[in-house]
Amino acid sequence: MSEERTEISSLGEFGLIDHLTKNIEHQNASTILGVGDDAAVIDHFGKQTVITTDLLIEGVHFDLMYTPLKHLGYKSVVVNVSDIYAMNATPTQITLSLAVSNRFSLEALEEFYDGVYVACEEYGVDLIGGDTTSSSKGFVISVTAIGEVAPDQYVKRSTAKPNDLICVSGYLGGAYLGLLLLEREKKIFLETKGVQPDLENRDYIVGRLLKPEARRDIIEFFEKEKIVPTAMMDISDGLSSEVLHICKQSEVGAVLYEDKIPVHPDAKDFAYKLEIDPTACALSGGEDYELVFTLSQSDYDKIKDVNGIRVVGYVTEAAEGAHIITRGGNKHELTAQGWNAFSK
Amino acid sequence: MSEERTEISSLGEFGLIDHLTKNIEHQNASTILGVGDDAAVIDHFGKQTVITTDLLIEGVHFDLMYTPLKHLGYKSVVVNVSDIYAMNATPTQITLSLAVSNRFSLEALEEFYDGVYVACEEYGVDLIGGDTTSSSKGFVISVTAIGEVAPDQYVKRSTAKPNDLICVSGYLGGAYLGLLLLEREKKIFLETKGVQPDLENRDYIVGRLLKPEARRDIIEFFEKEKIVPTAMMDISDGLSSEVLHICKQSEVGAVLYEDKIPVHPDAKDFAYKLEIDPTACALSGGEDYELVFTLSQSDYDKIKDVNGIRVVGYVTEAAEGAHIITRGGNKHELTAQGWNAFSK
Repeated sequence: MSEERTEISSLGEFGLIDHLTKNIEHQNASTILGVGDDAAVIDHFGKQTVITTDLLIEGVHFDLMYTPLKHLGYKSVVVNVSDIYAMNATPTQITLSLAVSNRFSLEALEEFYDGVYVACEEYGVDLIGGDTTSSSKGFVISVTAIGEVAPDQYVKRSTAKPNDLICVSGYLGGAYLGLLLLEREKKIFLETKGVQPDLENRDYIVGRLLKPEARRDIIEFFEKEKIVPTAMMDISDGLSSEVLHICKQSEVGAVLYEDKIPVHPDAKDFAYKLEIDPTACALSGGEDYELVFTLSQSDYDKIKDVNGIRVVGYVTEAAEGAHIITRGGNKHELTAQGWNAFSK
Repeated sequence: MSEERTEISSLGEFGLIDHLTKNIEHQNASTILGVGDDAAVIDHFGKQTVITTDLLIEGVHFDLMYTPLKHLGYKSVVVNVSDIYAMNATPTQITLSLAVSNRFSLEALEEFYDGVYVACEEYGVDLIGGDTTSSSKGFVISVTAIGEVAPDQYVKRSTAKPNDLICVSGYLGGAYLGLLLLEREKKIFLETKGVQPDLENRDYIVGRLLKPEARRDIIEFFEKEKIVPTAMMDISDGLSSEVLHICKQSEVGAVLYEDKIPVHPDAKDFAYKLEIDPTACALSGGEDYELVFTLSQSDYDKIKDVNGIRVVGYVTEAAEGAHIITRGGNKHELTAQGWNAFSK
């Protein structure tokens, strides 16, 4: 990281935007006009346009004490493209608006944008617009992601059917355990000045929180295998909360099996160290950005041996409610204890 | 306004979004899927999609001491659809994200959304998505507006040509004078408790600041008369700043005439009362949301008698720079003293 500090105010609003966006090269033919006018222009040439937006607020969604700005820039893009994949669509563009107080230098913003551009490259999206302004306090990030999908091939949350399989990608609960670790180390650091955080052998869970990835590979696999999930969403608030959304919007019930829910060994290890239940972390911990989707049973053979996709339960009639069967064979009602921004 | 106070936290994040968006009815066939999934889906059926975004921060962009929440909701939509019109496009959808601290009640948010919905109705756009979250402090608004335009019929800032006419819609400077008035009355109110603000006969300038309108009528007039401006943008930072943007991006110069710049009589009246120059307010005061556009001279006959469109100057070669000719016949260089969020 550079030691220099250039005040943002020395560039002015337009100078700042010019500086931060001057090296953009578009990757998508659908980007007709990018940064620098009243609005951007895109053309999906007969496909439908998918659009999602997220607002990230310092102190609510991230803590700059342990979040490197480059990672934060990367994650700001990822959490939005994840919503595009969750529609079975391909992300193509983003807009990015920032509000920053004068405690941030130009070099700090450059680091943030570095992360944004790395994510844009990784996920094949173009930064086509935005807004940069001052805030009286803190760092505010607003990203809108745009994607494309063949007409009516998008996948909603409201179309799961009884007897469908419930599947998830990857491992769950890791990001939440990373958050617990970093919050613990922050507390120790603040209480005992000079003690450096002990993150040894915790790369996996820390990485899950600070540098999540969106599941582009799963959507590409669906396309290759001609699989269309009956319903899908991304897991940002915990598996319970998301399955309950699908149940409510599809007017169905669900059964999950505790022993099928995938938790990474490194995440389990830290959960046991904290004496908390790894399954509870998977069900109620947020920010994994994996996909949960329902599949017709006729697609089972296509996914049963795929690394990174696991069947965790099945869809039932609405009257049966939503439950989880524990390892011991007990049946519990599924409740949403996912992260709720307003109950904090 | 209701006297009730319902805490936002009593609804939870999803309950709050459901509550605030439950009565949405889509006006546009292009809105395929709206609020309630990972992303919205739109289809402009062969047209191109135009997209713009703005971030509005309490204490930087608005002051809730004199800004009614309903007006703020309305204005949040207007400033964004104004950017869509400035591309010669038709707005069709918006997304809206809010971050609010717990000092705001549900009733306060309902007022804000009331204004949003009135603007959506007025401008024919559908609210199709967004995000609602908590903030540690203050009110943060992020709106993304989406519009449509026939392929390659959008109008950029970078395509003005020497000898084109420079035109503006409506009157300029009024919003800035409204801001001066409200800031003065706020100061008096704070210094002399109990003195109510004196806004008598100042409806025009106060309205220009608190409830601006976007120039849908001008874009519809262009379509009817088959006029395509050579360049266009909306006036959010003052006429000087916008003309200089067009000059820079089009690689041209400009001459403006002071006596042609339209300032409303009620705005002039208050400027004289404050002993400031009305033209300076038009050149450097922001937030009028009028349009500035350049036209080929061959279109002059089509606009010369149109109420609400005025020719204020012409485009020159870049080498001649950008100037204003005063009433007295003096020539001054045009400088951008428009509102700059970072110099405050």
